Amino acid sequence: MKSAVLAAVGDELLSGARLEKNAHFMAGKFHAKGWEVKRIEVISDEEDEIISLLSRWVGKTDVLIMSGGLGPTHDDKTRNAIARYLGCGLQADNKAYDRVVERVRNAPKRLAYTESVRDPQAMIPELAETVFNPAGFALGIKFEREGTKVIALPGVPFEYEAMTRQEFPEIFTTDEKRTASVIILDTPEMTIAGKIPEVIKNERLHVSILPAFPQVELILRGEPETVAWAEGLTRSRFDGLVLPEGSRSIADAVLIEARAKGVMVACAESCTGGLVGGALTELAGSSDVFNGSAVTYSNDAKMKILGVKSETLSRFGAVSSECAQEMAEGARKVYSADFAVSTTGIAGPDGGSESKPVGTVWFGIAGSEGKRSMMKRLPGNREEVRMRAVRFALSELWKEIRGH
Amino acid sequence: MKSAVLAAVGDELLSGARLEKNAHFMAGKFHAKGWEVKRIEVISDEEDEIISLLSRWVGKTDVLIMSGGLGPTHDDKTRNAIARYLGCGLQADNKAYDRVVERVRNAPKRLAYTESVRDPQAMIPELAETVFNPAGFALGIKFEREGTKVIALPGVPFEYEAMTRQEFPEIFTTDEKRTASVIILDTPEMTIAGKIPEVIKNERLHVSILPAFPQVELILRGEPETVAWAEGLTRSRFDGLVLPEGSRSIADAVLIEARAKGVMVACAESCTGGLVGGALTELAGSSDVFNGSAVTYSNDAKMKILGVKSETLSRFGAVSSECAQEMAEGARKVYSADFAVSTTGIAGPDGGSESKPVGTVWFGIAGSEGKRSMMKRLPGNREEVRMRAVRFALSELWKEIRGH
Repeated sequence: MKSAVLAAVGDELLSGARLEKNAHFMAGKFHAKGWEVKRIEVISDEEDEIISLLSRWVGKTDVLIMSGGLGPTHDDKTRNAIARYLGCGLQADNKAYDRVVERVRNAPKRLAYTESVRDPQAMIPELAETVFNPAGFALGIKFEREGTKVIALPGVPFEYEAMTRQEFPEIFTTDEKRTASVIILDTPEMTIAGKIPEVIKNERLHVSILPAFPQVELILRGEPETVAWAEGLTRSRFDGLVLPEGSRSIADAVLIEARAKGVMVACAESCTGGLVGGALTELAGSSDVFNGSAVTYSNDAKMKILGVKSETLSRFGAVSSECAQEMAEGARKVYSADFAVSTTGIAGPDGGSESKPVGTVWFGIAGSEGKRSMMKRLPGNREEVRMRAVRFALSELWKEIRGH
Repeated sequence: MKSAVLAAVGDELLSGARLEKNAHFMAGKFHAKGWEVKRIEVISDEEDEIISLLSRWVGKTDVLIMSGGLGPTHDDKTRNAIARYLGCGLQADNKAYDRVVERVRNAPKRLAYTESVRDPQAMIPELAETVFNPAGFALGIKFEREGTKVIALPGVPFEYEAMTRQEFPEIFTTDEKRTASVIILDTPEMTIAGKIPEVIKNERLHVSILPAFPQVELILRGEPETVAWAEGLTRSRFDGLVLPEGSRSIADAVLIEARAKGVMVACAESCTGGLVGGALTELAGSSDVFNGSAVTYSNDAKMKILGVKSETLSRFGAVSSECAQEMAEGARKVYSADFAVSTTGIAGPDGGSESKPVGTVWFGIAGSEGKRSMMKRLPGNREEVRMRAVRFALSELWKEIRGH
């Protein structure tokens, strides 16, 4: 099995100012191809730390990918650290950089800027090679030593992605599945484990169980035929609660189901503030089946846009079964949709009461056969309550369209 | 300077199935208190890997926090690994677990489930101590060896947060600022660096420069008085383009400014699908100043809810200056808001044309003094185009309210 180590360089990552996502992205790609990702490391942007990272892994892994530290400012130290590690100087790869400059030829301000940072952005250690940057300005660096291919790329996510695609084309092709994901709704993880013991205890499989209310995701890994068997068995045991194959999220399942049925969906959101709509439009092509979402934070907006009755709000409050149903019905009408889902709740940290504590969320569903509502008490802080509410709203919408 | 190492255990993190965020959260907390976060590591959930992590860091850092691997399923190996490392057995801390069970006393199904996973969730290595879990079921584990305090916590974010708060109360207090963040809009990073050389080159400061269009964030770290001086100087040099002190994001700045001016805001979103509303409601208390957002993906919804003219759509298309302005004006009216911002564009990967390539986004602003619009060509994949559009929309809204 080939192995990779993924590292990110940057004090902003160790100080909590930025969340590292490049290693996460590339880990998924390597993993799907059956590579072992040995470790993810985040280190500070000190030359000594970068050199120590190289010493730690060169000769111990097939690939080491580093991201960050290639920009034009004082805190970008990857170039110098690699040159010191290799025991050589730096020289400008002007030919490669000219190709970068070419892209901004027609924008005078950007052209002047790009030229002004030629030093250091074109500088490459003499004993290493250039990695061309098709999406940004900083060139990358690569070299091989003791059987390890080391590659240093900029930290900007879409530059990192473009350059890993270019350097590891074999990783980005799709072929046999060594990893499968099965997403099951409304079932506790121990219940799931109990229903598929021959999958869970199979020594030829590696199974991860990842709960994220109201779903639990099983990640199955192993040889393609074992993965295929386990995925098929799991899907059959949880029929009706399993998201369809190929849907990467509940939002994705909603879009697939709506497309299959030829129906349009819409939302009405209060406590989720637009995140249900955001999730439904994360994937391209959602406009086929998604008309929109009315984010109505104020009571006025609930009445004016969605037609929630003033009496409903004064009698039951905005966080109520009645309001959730009227919101869903209103969204269905105003967006001329076949199905609509609504959220109204208390995401916290303030605004809770004894009868409606923080985490109380009402959900409404409106379809051709009428409307219904349900309440959940969701745990966690504001962000977590909102994310759980988004997923639960989408899962109820999916079930509704599916049963249609 | 005290030091910490933050580790996360889990194959799902190394396979790209899950993004690690606990270490990121805690890194920010430690950092703000002047601790050095030496490294963030993500390791696989093998007992040997956990033991190797302990061997690597015990004696070399003041604190080592591990997260994950404490659940009830087969892939949870942290307990056994710590027991093996300490050379002892496991025993149930039933007293602590009883306090956990007590919380679900009145929910029969959850009570039965919680009891069914007492083994392993109550098990603690004999030579270690229990860390009580005030927010979930799995108990944590802690011990000290060779001057290193080791603490193993569940990976569920709000349990991790509650337990770190409980174990490191001194980290969660606020006192003198050893870190300051200054967010500057619409200025390239090299221009910023050139305007404050005495800050950038100051040896008593550590400065990180983090671009995220249309903002650049400077993180200043050092002794409190140096940080205060550098922050003051930076703010004065970029007056008018600096987000106000205490605002952690552009959305936050919008809410602060709107509250100060006593105005209400609203949005109309197409390509951002609800994410502008989502960003404005991320922080508690946004209902004071935010009425809502009309997510109108279909042309019908743009016309019906926002009053965009049919002629505008047929003549200029949905991605146009005219449509952006009508959307903003429509949102301002329908939400009875003082200011509204709109987004309409092509997030990709499909839908682009020669005259309107992927990444083309029009923004509209409507206020008491009329409306305006602007276009940006945003780089990156769908997610990045959307996130850049969200930040740009909010920055224009902020400037509009500020100039009011």
